[in-house]
Amino acid sequence: NDTFDPTDHPHKRYNPLTDDWVLVSPHRAKRPWQGQQEAADIPQLPSYDDQCFLCPGNTRISGATNPDYQTTFVFENDFAALQKTTPLSSQQDPLFRYASEQGEAHVICFSPDHSKTLPELPLSDIFAVINTWIEQHQRLSQSYEWVQLFENKGEIMGCSQPHPHGQIWANTTVPTLPAREHNQQQAYFQTHSSAMLLDYALRESADGARTVVENDDWIAVVPYWAAWPFETLLLPKFACRHIGELSEPQRHTLAAALSELTCRYDNLFNTSFPYSMGWHGAPSSEAENPAWQLHAHFFPPLLRSSSVKKFMVGYEMLAEAQRDLTPEQAAEKLQTVSTTHFKEHSE
Amino acid sequence: NDTFDPTDHPHKRYNPLTDDWVLVSPHRAKRPWQGQQEAADIPQLPSYDDQCFLCPGNTRISGATNPDYQTTFVFENDFAALQKTTPLSSQQDPLFRYASEQGEAHVICFSPDHSKTLPELPLSDIFAVINTWIEQHQRLSQSYEWVQLFENKGEIMGCSQPHPHGQIWANTTVPTLPAREHNQQQAYFQTHSSAMLLDYALRESADGARTVVENDDWIAVVPYWAAWPFETLLLPKFACRHIGELSEPQRHTLAAALSELTCRYDNLFNTSFPYSMGWHGAPSSEAENPAWQLHAHFFPPLLRSSSVKKFMVGYEMLAEAQRDLTPEQAAEKLQTVSTTHFKEHSE
Ligand SMILES: O=P(O)(O)O[C@H]1O[C@H](CO)[C@@H](O)[C@H](O)[C@H]1O
Ligand SMILES: O=P(O)(O)O[C@H]1O[C@H](CO)[C@@H](O)[C@H](O)[C@H]1O
Repeated sequence: NDTFDPTDHPHKRYNPLTDDWVLVSPHRAKRPWQGQQEAADIPQLPSYDDQCFLCPGNTRISGATNPDYQTTFVFENDFAALQKTTPLSSQQDPLFRYASEQGEAHVICFSPDHSKTLPELPLSDIFAVINTWIEQHQRLSQSYEWVQLFENKGEIMGCSQPHPHGQIWANTTVPTLPAREHNQQQAYFQTHSSAMLLDYALRESADGARTVVENDDWIAVVPYWAAWPFETLLLPKFACRHIGELSEPQRHTLAAALSELTCRYDNLFNTSFPYSMGWHGAPSSEAENPAWQLHAHFFPPLLRSSSVKKFMVGYEMLAEAQRDLTPEQAAEKLQTVSTTHFKEHSE
Repeated sequence: NDTFDPTDHPHKRYNPLTDDWVLVSPHRAKRPWQGQQEAADIPQLPSYDDQCFLCPGNTRISGATNPDYQTTFVFENDFAALQKTTPLSSQQDPLFRYASEQGEAHVICFSPDHSKTLPELPLSDIFAVINTWIEQHQRLSQSYEWVQLFENKGEIMGCSQPHPHGQIWANTTVPTLPAREHNQQQAYFQTHSSAMLLDYALRESADGARTVVENDDWIAVVPYWAAWPFETLLLPKFACRHIGELSEPQRHTLAAALSELTCRYDNLFNTSFPYSMGWHGAPSSEAENPAWQLHAHFFPPLLRSSSVKKFMVGYEMLAEAQRDLTPEQAAEKLQTVSTTHFKEHSE
């Protein structure tokens, strides 16, 4: 036992994007689980639900009525965490520092179909979601420094409406995590004269051990520094600073990559695989900055099955993220599942 | 609506300990909740359970038998995330950087009683837990740079054994979050020639708006920059770099502060209040560094009731922590509950 073996020995890996480390403890995957279990049944939802606030033609809590939409539908969040008209105010005290924040929050219904999540939608519908992301990013980045496009999928991820949808929060300052990514990408560019995440995408593509999905334009990997068991990072294989720069062919190949990635996720535990996902790209005032590279993070909570999740608690909240299987082991599991959605098999 | 009102308008607050911001959106507390609910019943546990791996005299998964212990009991974690003998190895590649890590993991049973969590234990038993923390910290800090004392309480916090217990993970490098706290405290000390968290404790004591518990030596506040709804920070009101420096009287007042804080937590929603808590103090090689101030973080997940938690997902995972009530509003709720444990009332 004198030689270091990354598939057995505890080690730390460095996340160059956030300047965090993650503790990898592969041998710990052997421990039995006696703790909390999540509900694992997949309810069969109808295509239209007259109680749903997001279905076409229905009335929302606010009293507004949804149009009879055919593709995507965007509306302002009825309980927005950010507001356009917040009065300006701030305090510089080093221990009691605040600044008021202006912004907007919107909801994107992915399609009229109440029952179909991303991997169950045809590519043309995913393409429509991508176009809506880009339109919203273009519109909101005129007024706001940061536009966060994201999706919380599944009750376990705090999603309170089963109708497949994403969210957009836009605000006047760059939030904590993208600000850290900005500093890290900037420092890498100064040293290497190349974009960190483009270098990374090409090296992962050449290696293959952590690749989950790859096509001409895109690669999705379990990043070398993944914290969540089946976390992935979706990257363009070409220079691209923000989502607004994607050409039409690149949007089509993105639809294919998203479809395959979310399908592999669902097939891993034969469940509608929960996650939070979202896009990071150059902030509005950095739109031309070549240090920035567009990417999407997928943070799925499940660990062992559709009912046992990874708890990011205790040591993780107080000290450092910790994972029980290596990113390479996670990638291998995602590589071996089918690319036909499990629900199609059972039909 | 021209004047900024922190109890109504979205704003960001700065966490000087971790260099993070948190988005505070107080008006959002009004939104209805239709998402996941946690199981809320409080099982009445027996004082001894012959199926429990932690009860005195029982056999653990490893085959080892627990002694017939009378106060606390410490044993090496049967599925430790860290190991003493990990071979040394590292790689400096900027995109694929790792270092092997050596360490140990232990479990502390708080008392022989299977049914009694911290707020239900007599002060003398809490005092014994504090002494055990200090002993373990002293022992492990001889060999390791970082000793993380913590407790995951409740199934919702990944706790897989109902017998009240904490954990200790010790390792050779300072983990990500304490390393950030080190840098921030160091920078503050260089500017102000005083310890950040001692200055902070005294200012909170003078103010009172965020104070939940206070006695001669200790203060627990919902920090100005709290991310979790009912997060608290427990601070000594005297200079103290690490837990090993506590005198016997200071341990007694700490037992009283811990008892009152956890009792207020339980009484908030009449439940055995889940949380992850843990201690941060100067790393071993910084034991004399006056910039460091000992403190404990409590991170409880509940938001509205014993069954509705705050989901740190989506925007929080991708951009920045966000909270729905102000720290002052949370402190007020914790201030108004009784200091007699709800289970005593119902007996
Ligand atoms: O050590 P335990 O109780 O088995 O495990 C629990 O605490 C650990 C440390 O906080 C976490 O990494 C695990 O996800 C959690 O389930
Ligand atoms: O906006 P929703 O869906 O009501 O709320 C959900 O997403 C938000 C943004 O990620 C989180 O802050 C909430 O905790 C979560 O429940």
